[in-house]
Amino acid sequence: MVVGLRAIGAKGPGWLWRGPWAPLAASFCSQGPDGARRPEPGPRPTSVRQRDGIRSIVLSNPKKRNALSLAMLKSLQSDILHEAESQDLKVIIISAEGPVFSSGHDLKELTDEQGPQYHAEVFQICSEVMMLIQNHPVPVIAMVNGLATAAGCQLVASCDIAVASDKSSFATPGVNIGLFCSTPGVALGRAVPRKVALEMLFTGEPISAQEALLHGLLSRVVPEEQLEEETMRIARKIASLSRPVVSLGKATFYKQLHQDLRKAYHLASQTMVDNVALRDGQEGIKAFIQKRKPVWSH
Amino acid sequence: MVVGLRAIGAKGPGWLWRGPWAPLAASFCSQGPDGARRPEPGPRPTSVRQRDGIRSIVLSNPKKRNALSLAMLKSLQSDILHEAESQDLKVIIISAEGPVFSSGHDLKELTDEQGPQYHAEVFQICSEVMMLIQNHPVPVIAMVNGLATAAGCQLVASCDIAVASDKSSFATPGVNIGLFCSTPGVALGRAVPRKVALEMLFTGEPISAQEALLHGLLSRVVPEEQLEEETMRIARKIASLSRPVVSLGKATFYKQLHQDLRKAYHLASQTMVDNVALRDGQEGIKAFIQKRKPVWSH
Amino acid sequence: MVVGLRAIGAKGPGWLWRGPWAPLAASFCSQGPDGARRPEPGPRPTSVRQRDGIRSIVLSNPKKRNALSLAMLKSLQSDILHEAESQDLKVIIISAEGPVFSSGHDLKELTDEQGPQYHAEVFQICSEVMMLIQNHPVPVIAMVNGLATAAGCQLVASCDIAVASDKSSFATPGVNIGLFCSTPGVALGRAVPRKVALEMLFTGEPISAQEALLHGLLSRVVPEEQLEEETMRIARKIASLSRPVVSLGKATFYKQLHQDLRKAYHLASQTMVDNVALRDGQEGIKAFIQKRKPVWSH
Repeated sequence: MVVGLRAIGAKGPGWLWRGPWAPLAASFCSQGPDGARRPEPGPRPTSVRQRDGIRSIVLSNPKKRNALSLAMLKSLQSDILHEAESQDLKVIIISAEGPVFSSGHDLKELTDEQGPQYHAEVFQICSEVMMLIQNHPVPVIAMVNGLATAAGCQLVASCDIAVASDKSSFATPGVNIGLFCSTPGVALGRAVPRKVALEMLFTGEPISAQEALLHGLLSRVVPEEQLEEETMRIARKIASLSRPVVSLGKATFYKQLHQDLRKAYHLASQTMVDNVALRDGQEGIKAFIQKRKPVWSH
Repeated sequence: MVVGLRAIGAKGPGWLWRGPWAPLAASFCSQGPDGARRPEPGPRPTSVRQRDGIRSIVLSNPKKRNALSLAMLKSLQSDILHEAESQDLKVIIISAEGPVFSSGHDLKELTDEQGPQYHAEVFQICSEVMMLIQNHPVPVIAMVNGLATAAGCQLVASCDIAVASDKSSFATPGVNIGLFCSTPGVALGRAVPRKVALEMLFTGEPISAQEALLHGLLSRVVPEEQLEEETMRIARKIASLSRPVVSLGKATFYKQLHQDLRKAYHLASQTMVDNVALRDGQEGIKAFIQKRKPVWSH
Repeated sequence: MVVGLRAIGAKGPGWLWRGPWAPLAASFCSQGPDGARRPEPGPRPTSVRQRDGIRSIVLSNPKKRNALSLAMLKSLQSDILHEAESQDLKVIIISAEGPVFSSGHDLKELTDEQGPQYHAEVFQICSEVMMLIQNHPVPVIAMVNGLATAAGCQLVASCDIAVASDKSSFATPGVNIGLFCSTPGVALGRAVPRKVALEMLFTGEPISAQEALLHGLLSRVVPEEQLEEETMRIARKIASLSRPVVSLGKATFYKQLHQDLRKAYHLASQTMVDNVALRDGQEGIKAFIQKRKPVWSH
């Protein structure tokens, strides 16, 4: 089954829209003079297809180094959100056309010509996309073949799993142009040791794929010619699993991660009890004891 | 001195029993019909001996791959708790018989035949054992020679120090049988980078001892023939130190780790002042200045 | 421009003095009998010079292994604080004379002869210096060539960036003399994985520069003969950037690091909007679009 997605107008479920954005959001919901200056929408900057439970989203504006323009971010957001609750979706892969995975924000959107309300919208949508990846019910894999900088590096850091070719590299060079990578630093600072993050943020210098693996920014590094095969192997594995079991586990993992140990175990123990009680939980355990392959009902 | 422990009925001190378990615990304290279905206790699944301040607890059910059944968990718990406050105890080593360190929960305890109250008890006791290791007054070392999966991997992640042979490997494969390793994820997510933890949890695939070392799950990897020697070297070193000094330091380390920096320094500074005031604190400093070996009074 | 600093009486700005120290501080602000026993101040134990925005602070008491005595800590504190708000200061490097970077506290200050109020002052000043490094408006780099132990290791862990020669090593050996490195553990536990920190704290054994790099305690390891060159390269790079941009980014990085993800993104997004609105923010973006070098107004 191949599903072409043109998810214009896709709306996310309730779990995606909560939190302290209200004041920031309110300021640019008014269609003031800034709104008038917004660039017209062009052709869709991402392409997407879905087969056998695996949705592949491709950043498809290599001429602009796959910059995370407002249009790109909105396209990415709607591709991720599209039918997020469908049982046909098991895993998402985000990759890119061309030698640059993504160069981060489109700097033309951050000049004086657009006002601070427009700038706020850019950073808010960007942050929402990054959080959406963690809040999404299925695992999201970054497949990186090339340079990922600034918000592009943030996108890699925000995915649940990241596989990269050995020629890839990663940087947060905003400081060179007077724009410290503070939002990328949120994701980077949660992925790599503090000293690694700070050297990247303060100097803007790139790290190699091997260094990124060593420090936890990547899950796996492979030669370029094996990148797609290796990523698909992981994706097919995840697609073969019970979707509700994976979703429950993913949500609990992120929720418990910053709780104190006792609260975390209380939550995770309750999740285990709930998981065992799921139809797929009992099916999996029975299949194991009976030494047969489980049949998921999802 | 060799002390054979059969710590039936061992009770832990007050510092071990606090926290938000009450509602969950209440539900299975009632001896309802589930209780009636519990398996009869068999021979004790751990063996334990203590010599020169070093307590060695061995998971001793290799036929069942040292599964952390309820009986195994209770046996482990009582071995860890036994005379925890005794000055004769300086360090604990947890190891296992056979090629599998531990395969995690006993899946036969997680079927429909036992009800959710029984399942809840299994996960609660398991969580308590893991927290007990951190709350215990002496350091706990995992000595791993083989495969550690699911709650077995969690046990390794929960110890203060973990030494493994280079043939060991580690996995959280619950997702394969429809039971996401959410409780192991609590310990794993605090030991390794997020992307490493998530790939292990989502794919169920094992990582090698070297990878586990690289990512922080292990303290040290050695050839199999040096495993016991190296572990004992660390244990003897710890056993030669002042027990109250080590206990105070361990408790403060875990307490400050997730506090904000200012609170953490406030706590740790107070601990330093208290430590200096300990008899062994003054003895150690004097011995150092006088260039002699300290004599601890514990 | 070379500025010799003798920052006697330097006072820090308001942002440095907040937090829960009051009760501890109050106890030793009274000049009681302990005060009378304090050692007389000797020659200044640090040397400092500043050129082209780069301040170099050198621990200069190699005969005493650059122990962080109260005098050393106060000297270091005033060197770091001196004209912290000056636009002429862009980055600080902390290094040391002799084969030992720093051996940690001066144990002669921690005997019974000084009372607990004096001990409390030592640990408080030490903690303040460590926090000052993170709260300081410019990046602080540790340049290490040799052994850094106890509070000396804490100092390395507390810097934003740490470059070391490959002959350097790092330890928290307090436990050997009955004084667990609890305050060093605050910084160490935030720099390296928990199991690495605990093995260092419980055994007191050193780790090599390569291990320290692997585990996140260092940003970079180089051969001894390249240490100064490499450190200066990083420092010059930072000194070439916009100071207010770097300051804003540094403050936000540390602030967001332990917030929950949504709060962190809210804060960092606001910082990005503020950063874009800075004169240097707009200059940098314009220079990039116009393909010219930016001219910072700071």
